[in-house]
Amino acid sequence: MAVGAGCAALRGCLRVLKRAFSQHKGHSGKDMESTLQSVRSIVPPLTTGKHKGQDGRIGVVGGCREYTGAPYFAAISALKVGADLSHVFCTQEAAPVIKSYSPELIVHPVLDSPDAVRAVGEWLPRLHALVVGPGLGRDHVLLENAKGILEAAKAGGIPVVIDADGLWLVAQQPALVQGYPKAVLTPNHVEFSRLSEAVLGEPPDGRDRRGAVLRLSQALGNVTVVQKGERDVIADGVQVLECSQEGSSRRCGGQGDLLSGSLGVLAHWALRAGPEKTDGPSPLLVAAFGACALTRQCSRQAFQKHGRSTTTTDMIAEVGPAFSRLFED
Amino acid sequence: MAVGAGCAALRGCLRVLKRAFSQHKGHSGKDMESTLQSVRSIVPPLTTGKHKGQDGRIGVVGGCREYTGAPYFAAISALKVGADLSHVFCTQEAAPVIKSYSPELIVHPVLDSPDAVRAVGEWLPRLHALVVGPGLGRDHVLLENAKGILEAAKAGGIPVVIDADGLWLVAQQPALVQGYPKAVLTPNHVEFSRLSEAVLGEPPDGRDRRGAVLRLSQALGNVTVVQKGERDVIADGVQVLECSQEGSSRRCGGQGDLLSGSLGVLAHWALRAGPEKTDGPSPLLVAAFGACALTRQCSRQAFQKHGRSTTTTDMIAEVGPAFSRLFED
Repeated sequence: MAVGAGCAALRGCLRVLKRAFSQHKGHSGKDMESTLQSVRSIVPPLTTGKHKGQDGRIGVVGGCREYTGAPYFAAISALKVGADLSHVFCTQEAAPVIKSYSPELIVHPVLDSPDAVRAVGEWLPRLHALVVGPGLGRDHVLLENAKGILEAAKAGGIPVVIDADGLWLVAQQPALVQGYPKAVLTPNHVEFSRLSEAVLGEPPDGRDRRGAVLRLSQALGNVTVVQKGERDVIADGVQVLECSQEGSSRRCGGQGDLLSGSLGVLAHWALRAGPEKTDGPSPLLVAAFGACALTRQCSRQAFQKHGRSTTTTDMIAEVGPAFSRLFED
Repeated sequence: MAVGAGCAALRGCLRVLKRAFSQHKGHSGKDMESTLQSVRSIVPPLTTGKHKGQDGRIGVVGGCREYTGAPYFAAISALKVGADLSHVFCTQEAAPVIKSYSPELIVHPVLDSPDAVRAVGEWLPRLHALVVGPGLGRDHVLLENAKGILEAAKAGGIPVVIDADGLWLVAQQPALVQGYPKAVLTPNHVEFSRLSEAVLGEPPDGRDRRGAVLRLSQALGNVTVVQKGERDVIADGVQVLECSQEGSSRRCGGQGDLLSGSLGVLAHWALRAGPEKTDGPSPLLVAAFGACALTRQCSRQAFQKHGRSTTTTDMIAEVGPAFSRLFED
């Protein structure tokens, strides 16, 4: 026992040293491959003895008057990555539309109800991860409800991925995620600038993206931050990874929802597998890297078929083949 | 500097001379090819450093009690041509149906609200082009709202494509577009006659389509007019182009929406590229020619597969390959 505990402590030290070292260097092709290998290690084996729900029950908080596509894209992506059940918590008005996109989703028309936080809260113990923000919009009532749901998810120790107008909320109230170790933020260029200004009081240094993402992550108490861009830059307060998996140059709306929905599942898998499995980067870094690589690969494959006319629906059709190619072959 | 300015002035003069000359001759196969080349020059390169929205954020004003397909066709065509985001501003009742056609669209149920002009006006600064009319209908309240939105778009200098019942509105009040240099009207045979009678006080001369389109365009203060027909005739008050790209003889409803939605994107691209790029015809002439050629090529390809059963949905499936064939290969 004592020897085993010593070994485990030694492995832990080595992981920290490895991560501290990797913070100071760029991310080469070899690093890309080794991080992809870490993602492969968290993917649960498909075995016949499993029950429905064991590979992931994911919730998406969003869907309002204007936006119904975004929560659908996030929720269906979670299913296509391998989750067993995918829930959407949206407004009364958005629910029938989101339901109509796909019979695969479980859609709860509760987000604009006075009882929203309790209603979603009842489901939280059954969820493995929550994606907050796709199609949330900026209505004051919905943002207040999203805040209450986020606080309940934190209290329950549930991993949360925050995107889109969920990030608008966090920029208004950074304390919402401050120091929560199971939060991942996925800002695009504009959202990253807004967050940096809110949290650090100044716009990010455009010449040093790695440094800027690391600083925001550290200022938020080591929350994982994924800055999407030409390359995706990911930091967890200790280590910085870059994902430059080949994607495409198409920038149609909805790609970020594919990323956030996939990340919901991968975050659950990575945290369940634990740092022993990911061997180096933290579980949430590995999950984020996996979601970035997958989204880019989907974009690449869809673009090869559809070129400039590629839309997010075309990319979602590639989730299965892209996942298999990156993480299973 | 002086030499550079002199050269630019000379190039400008040559363009005007070239255009004035081309007004007086027919449009040969060689002209077709050279105009297609001009369209190619305005298509933005797909580069990895871009952000979502940079290649086009398009709005469609239309969608009412009876008509929900038309604004969908226009908005999805814009995306498939290469826009990044596509909005529809329609009535409360039409919204859930239009949303359900595609999760790719952002649909705002505001067009029959007393607050419609302000609600759409808030979005206008974020849009690169507005398509007014697909599925608008002739309800008095909706036409009044469309009028207010059109005026706001003009005040904001946003390119507007006007089709279908948007043209009905313009026939009632030609002053709405009079002299607006970023307006394009896309009438079919009936709509063209109605407009000519309203603006010129007499039906168009059926024996001289080029002259008739040019006269209407000039009477409206050099607004670009696209008369759709067996050949499409396009004029901007100075020059007349004809598009006789091979299409099909199928005349199912919705083809005009594919044209107007595509034209929204191409108008933005052309105006952004400027006359230096289009080298000869004005940017909006080039955009209109491109949208006509694309619609006809989609029709041809869809007809080759589906024959008499071809519908607009079949044509929209051809937007990617047709665009690539005409403008990218």
